[in-house]
Amino acid sequence: MKKVLLATEKPFAAPAVTGIRKVFSDAGYELSVLEKYTGQEPLIQAVKVVNAMIIRSDVIDRNVIEQAPNLKIVVRAGAGYDNIDLNACTEKGVVAMNTPGQNSNAVAELLFGMMLYTARKQFNGDSGTELREKSIGIHGFGWVGRYVAAIAKGFGMKIHAYDPYVDATVFEKEGVTGHKDLQSLYESCQFITLHIPLTDTTKESVNYSLLSKMPKGATLINTARKEVISESSLLQMFEERNDFTYLADVQPDCAQKIAILYPGRYLFTPKKMGAQTEEANNNAGIAAAKQIVNFFEKGDVSCKVN
Amino acid sequence: MKKVLLATEKPFAAPAVTGIRKVFSDAGYELSVLEKYTGQEPLIQAVKVVNAMIIRSDVIDRNVIEQAPNLKIVVRAGAGYDNIDLNACTEKGVVAMNTPGQNSNAVAELLFGMMLYTARKQFNGDSGTELREKSIGIHGFGWVGRYVAAIAKGFGMKIHAYDPYVDATVFEKEGVTGHKDLQSLYESCQFITLHIPLTDTTKESVNYSLLSKMPKGATLINTARKEVISESSLLQMFEERNDFTYLADVQPDCAQKIAILYPGRYLFTPKKMGAQTEEANNNAGIAAAKQIVNFFEKGDVSCKVN
Repeated sequence: MKKVLLATEKPFAAPAVTGIRKVFSDAGYELSVLEKYTGQEPLIQAVKVVNAMIIRSDVIDRNVIEQAPNLKIVVRAGAGYDNIDLNACTEKGVVAMNTPGQNSNAVAELLFGMMLYTARKQFNGDSGTELREKSIGIHGFGWVGRYVAAIAKGFGMKIHAYDPYVDATVFEKEGVTGHKDLQSLYESCQFITLHIPLTDTTKESVNYSLLSKMPKGATLINTARKEVISESSLLQMFEERNDFTYLADVQPDCAQKIAILYPGRYLFTPKKMGAQTEEANNNAGIAAAKQIVNFFEKGDVSCKVN
Repeated sequence: MKKVLLATEKPFAAPAVTGIRKVFSDAGYELSVLEKYTGQEPLIQAVKVVNAMIIRSDVIDRNVIEQAPNLKIVVRAGAGYDNIDLNACTEKGVVAMNTPGQNSNAVAELLFGMMLYTARKQFNGDSGTELREKSIGIHGFGWVGRYVAAIAKGFGMKIHAYDPYVDATVFEKEGVTGHKDLQSLYESCQFITLHIPLTDTTKESVNYSLLSKMPKGATLINTARKEVISESSLLQMFEERNDFTYLADVQPDCAQKIAILYPGRYLFTPKKMGAQTEEANNNAGIAAAKQIVNFFEKGDVSCKVN
């Protein structure tokens, strides 16, 4: 009988645990749950006998991996996995996975919430503007980008996208105008929303030469990582263009300066919350459980990250 | 040559006036503009020679009508028209119109903004909930209701509606589950959004017997008129159901009580703002101009209200 550990320093909500428990009981696996633990010791003890584990932001370093001789797979319930030592996993023959796409709708909904809240003057009673018929450019057409396109369609927006890794036929199928270069995307869209990972290439890649191409009413929405934006370019845009607005989950380093100099033209969440919904957490937990079962029963490694 | 007066105590934005001017110059009509006037006298003087007029919230009473011997049509750029003396118009053979549907998308977008803002904990960084897969009940399937359905579709919501004046085939065409009675609508939907006019029949018609049928997480959204809701029922719901939330444009009379007793479970705009967008105002003005031309050139009276 396969033994699975659910190790969550910050526990899942009860419905997620119930859902996870059901997946494993249906599969005939044994689940043990380690929640709200303190320090690494309880985790070290718990991993000694298990074949698989589900984690959240729990740190799975080389020490943990080496104390788990029977471990075959560790799944991070969520998108990011920089809390797992991938090299140690690979060396010990452990498959590491994340659960891509499970929190994508949560992110997409947040950005429309931020767009509407800002377009309608933070609900202060003043006359605002509408999204319908406006152009939105989706920079990075992965999971989140696709949800953004679906929602934007409902709002009757004109949808544009750029993603060098996505085939033109995908854009056509989704009713999206695909762009072959970024300049052209930024030139075409009043709203630009970023859905790119942070890499050496993307770091500070959203810069003045792109932003300054945006048409009147330029609004940049960043629910990706703050580092993909060049903050000096951001400040230059604020200074030169009084029609420029920046909505971000989460605050740039220059947030205080923007708040003082450009009131009413920004919205920053106090901490990163795009992926934080009950549904996203439940979905990620249950997806992680299913991935573990599919790994053992079908050899499915499609979400492997190492 | 037809003479048209644009009489707006509270003027349109410049793009709307430009659009209106273009409609009349294309038609070969003469347009005069009376903006930011004080008292009725400038209006009385201006109407003496005109054949048609566009107004906003300007008061067109019997006195104005009687001073306008050549007037054939008055169009209220907007939805409501209780600022026009319809009886006086009818007696003098003047057609009165409004411009239905022009601000409907503005209202629909506002309510989704309010729903998302509330579902995501007013962007305070906490974990929220999603709209996707949730059920929304559209009570009154007119112009606003149809925009709500289109947007809800983008969010992947399950869409229900009730409207005794709408044929079942319309619901089917829009991918909406039509309900034959209100009880059934309220039983089926976590979110209920009101799009009914205020009449003797609808006054306080949204009451405890309906609201108490709503499933867990019941959220009532009112961008119609505050009077269609029974406020005693509202307070009873707040008291009995700690999962009940009320989002309204604009505040109920019992707003202060709700604010004190049920923090975090309501959102009220400080003044009615659903219809207030640049686009809605522009659209209404230009629609009014087109309706005047169609009235004279084609005898089109489809938006007549008297």
